[in-house]
Amino acid sequence: MAKEIITERSVDYSAWYNDIVRNANLAETSPVRGCMVIKPYGFGIWEKMKAQLDSMFKETGHTNAYFPLFIPKSFLSKEAQHVEGFAKECAVVTHHRLMNSPDGDGVVVDPDARLEEELIVRPTSETIIWHTYKNWINTYRDLPLLINQWANVVRWEMRTRPFLRTAEFLWQEGHTAHATKEEAIEESRMILDLYAKFAEEWMAMPVIKGIKTANERFAGADETFTIEALMQDGRALQSGTSHFLGQNFAKAFDVTFQNQNNREEHVWATSWGVSTRLMGGLIMTHSDDDGLIVPPKLAPIQVVIVPIPKPNGEIDEAAEKIIKALKDRGISVKYDRDKKKRPGFKFNEYEMHGVPVRLGLGKRDLANNQVEVARRDTMEVKSVNLDGVVDYIDNLLVEIQDNLFQKAKLFRDEKTTSVDTFDDFKSVLESKGGFISAHWDGTTETELKIKELTKATIRCIPIDQEDEAGTCILTGKPSERRVLFAKAY
Amino acid sequence: MAKEIITERSVDYSAWYNDIVRNANLAETSPVRGCMVIKPYGFGIWEKMKAQLDSMFKETGHTNAYFPLFIPKSFLSKEAQHVEGFAKECAVVTHHRLMNSPDGDGVVVDPDARLEEELIVRPTSETIIWHTYKNWINTYRDLPLLINQWANVVRWEMRTRPFLRTAEFLWQEGHTAHATKEEAIEESRMILDLYAKFAEEWMAMPVIKGIKTANERFAGADETFTIEALMQDGRALQSGTSHFLGQNFAKAFDVTFQNQNNREEHVWATSWGVSTRLMGGLIMTHSDDDGLIVPPKLAPIQVVIVPIPKPNGEIDEAAEKIIKALKDRGISVKYDRDKKKRPGFKFNEYEMHGVPVRLGLGKRDLANNQVEVARRDTMEVKSVNLDGVVDYIDNLLVEIQDNLFQKAKLFRDEKTTSVDTFDDFKSVLESKGGFISAHWDGTTETELKIKELTKATIRCIPIDQEDEAGTCILTGKPSERRVLFAKAY
Repeated sequence: MAKEIITERSVDYSAWYNDIVRNANLAETSPVRGCMVIKPYGFGIWEKMKAQLDSMFKETGHTNAYFPLFIPKSFLSKEAQHVEGFAKECAVVTHHRLMNSPDGDGVVVDPDARLEEELIVRPTSETIIWHTYKNWINTYRDLPLLINQWANVVRWEMRTRPFLRTAEFLWQEGHTAHATKEEAIEESRMILDLYAKFAEEWMAMPVIKGIKTANERFAGADETFTIEALMQDGRALQSGTSHFLGQNFAKAFDVTFQNQNNREEHVWATSWGVSTRLMGGLIMTHSDDDGLIVPPKLAPIQVVIVPIPKPNGEIDEAAEKIIKALKDRGISVKYDRDKKKRPGFKFNEYEMHGVPVRLGLGKRDLANNQVEVARRDTMEVKSVNLDGVVDYIDNLLVEIQDNLFQKAKLFRDEKTTSVDTFDDFKSVLESKGGFISAHWDGTTETELKIKELTKATIRCIPIDQEDEAGTCILTGKPSERRVLFAKAY
Repeated sequence: MAKEIITERSVDYSAWYNDIVRNANLAETSPVRGCMVIKPYGFGIWEKMKAQLDSMFKETGHTNAYFPLFIPKSFLSKEAQHVEGFAKECAVVTHHRLMNSPDGDGVVVDPDARLEEELIVRPTSETIIWHTYKNWINTYRDLPLLINQWANVVRWEMRTRPFLRTAEFLWQEGHTAHATKEEAIEESRMILDLYAKFAEEWMAMPVIKGIKTANERFAGADETFTIEALMQDGRALQSGTSHFLGQNFAKAFDVTFQNQNNREEHVWATSWGVSTRLMGGLIMTHSDDDGLIVPPKLAPIQVVIVPIPKPNGEIDEAAEKIIKALKDRGISVKYDRDKKKRPGFKFNEYEMHGVPVRLGLGKRDLANNQVEVARRDTMEVKSVNLDGVVDYIDNLLVEIQDNLFQKAKLFRDEKTTSVDTFDDFKSVLESKGGFISAHWDGTTETELKIKELTKATIRCIPIDQEDEAGTCILTGKPSERRVLFAKAY
């Protein structure tokens, strides 16, 4: 294989994204419309994300469980808003048997094996879980119930893109039950903070925490909290949501508890999730025209050692020492002894895959007690004394993680514009893109009109922002605070 | 809750099993026929199994990936034997949309949203994976390809039992591709050994490694290797299988590679899997009439501390010291400060859940610098000096793990009988059950006849056993070795 060619971002951003996904071996399309194959390297990054999120959920008192893949069709209609939002585009199981085709060619669906009630492949699990919780919750002593599930879900999307929007995707969905409204809201806010912390400290992806407008709320929620990130093309990516569900599902599935005063009350609920969509966010936040860039904390391989020009006894020995020292510090390292590929080819490969640090070990370097250290984020190459190289790498990984975050944050901040008129709104949206902070009169009508005119949507009402009186950019009506608009994925 | 009552094994083994599953909070049935809900405590055990297996797969060079949930119907017919074995009882997706019911009551399947080709919810993934491998494999340098997937699969079983046989279950499926027949066979044997090691050293469940007869082989395999365990009712449980697939799937999906001599050859394959069925094996190998017994290495909680009769400052202080010391050694520990439950109630609860070690911390014990240590496997209770209690527990956990294995092995060995006549075969099967080692003439006809007459099947041709000439118990024809019969789950 020669060097893979990646379309430049400036030429065709969408082609660039697809090239990264393919050439960095993250995922590929499958023969099943809208379903992707997550390749080992891509799955390795997802596994690291999953492990970190899972430990954060457990530290905050949640346990994992597993609920059925299928949901009886009738369940979806039980929560009125939920069915409107979710029941439509989904995979429907109608039969449970195939039979040999009468014409002897392959198999056909056995018409006698029709299910009495069709089953839906879960698009999300609120309904089946709240049906189950009814039997798990009797008194206040059974609360809070703090459960998470790692699962695959299916939503029959018409236009799909790897990681960003696929018919089947992997995610976690938390479903909690509480005795009071306040406690449920607190849980949904705590998870929002947890998601933001994960996005910023692990993915090095800066996010805005905010509240969704009524129009953008999860179907069945009283309030939806969101983290919104900005991609390099100036479009926003909704990266995780946490919902305060009020008593909606408790009422739909009749889940009550006896409170401390022996009165029956409906339970308060939250649900929250992040998915393999985060992989799309990771790719689009950091990568460049040379390939993927992975923050060190999520990199399947943090350091690669390339012998120059070929492995030999002396180089092997020096490499082994470094490998041992790095592993002792919990740093993952690969030594590429492949003799059939030249160093330049290998350099390109590891750049393409976004390995944060590359060491070049050559005979001449070793003679000078030196090693060549290249960092993927800035592409800088530097000679480092062999004696201190392990400390150097340890610090460098921290520096790269931080640099990626700072760089992305600077980009995001530069691409965030405050405007006060609709003309400015349209012109900034066209020329610069990004987040636009503007006043809005608070009505769904105005929100939809702006979307119709500009394709921009309200990403969120930011939480960490001062209230400020103003007038709506479209209607001129009074507004109490600015909201964040953007074109979005 | 009063003490949960468990049906005694001797009264009704099957009811006993269901009682354990329910009362130890492992799983419960769901409104979807044959699908179970795995509850947090049960899932905690499965997570420990999964983590250990995953690390063993990775140590042996495998990586994880993810393939689509759905398989196009036509894929199933591509491997002739595979379709016979798998295509029949499965969940078939025929539509991709619901719509509001014309009568205003709920939702119905939208007849306009019929899929061109039906999709099957994967019963196993050989077909979709080998379709994918075609693009991943070009030359011998792409081999071996060593991939595993953790996934849910669906087989529409008529009679289901929690963990042992469910329509949806969780599993791992390894799918590897090799340049030579020898290497593929070696891989399938290596995985068999890995499974046996996991079963014996982690689950404390002794297993017999063997080869399946042609009749019991996986649909599409040239050879199926199996680990077979014996449950307390004398029935066998097939606990994991590893298949040498020959070139069957490579031929069906046209997967070839260029060998070192530049010739095109079909790839050699293996597949292998263990599932949540192992949970059933774990339960039935160790548990007793007081509840679940979990080997320490897989216990979500290894040690529980119960204050007697209630927590107070002095007891809390002593408990915290022990907790810290245990955690420093990587031992998981729970301190049950619940003031509303009496110690006796708690004892029953933790016995029911199979927590390996229970500490009772009372005022009088503390005054004597002692703590009461109870082990779940033997129910022994002993006073131990507080100063040495952490060392004591550390050793005790190892001892319990070993004792559970030895006890299960002794049971298995006692329940394994060699017979030389069909009369003895039938009488042992009726009176004693268990594994029966007997001569068989090697034909499927005889195998099926014995099954028809006795309901016993050939579990495997054991690998670790000397060849021995003899005559078939049914036909009197010559036999080269004994095989292992049993009634099975």
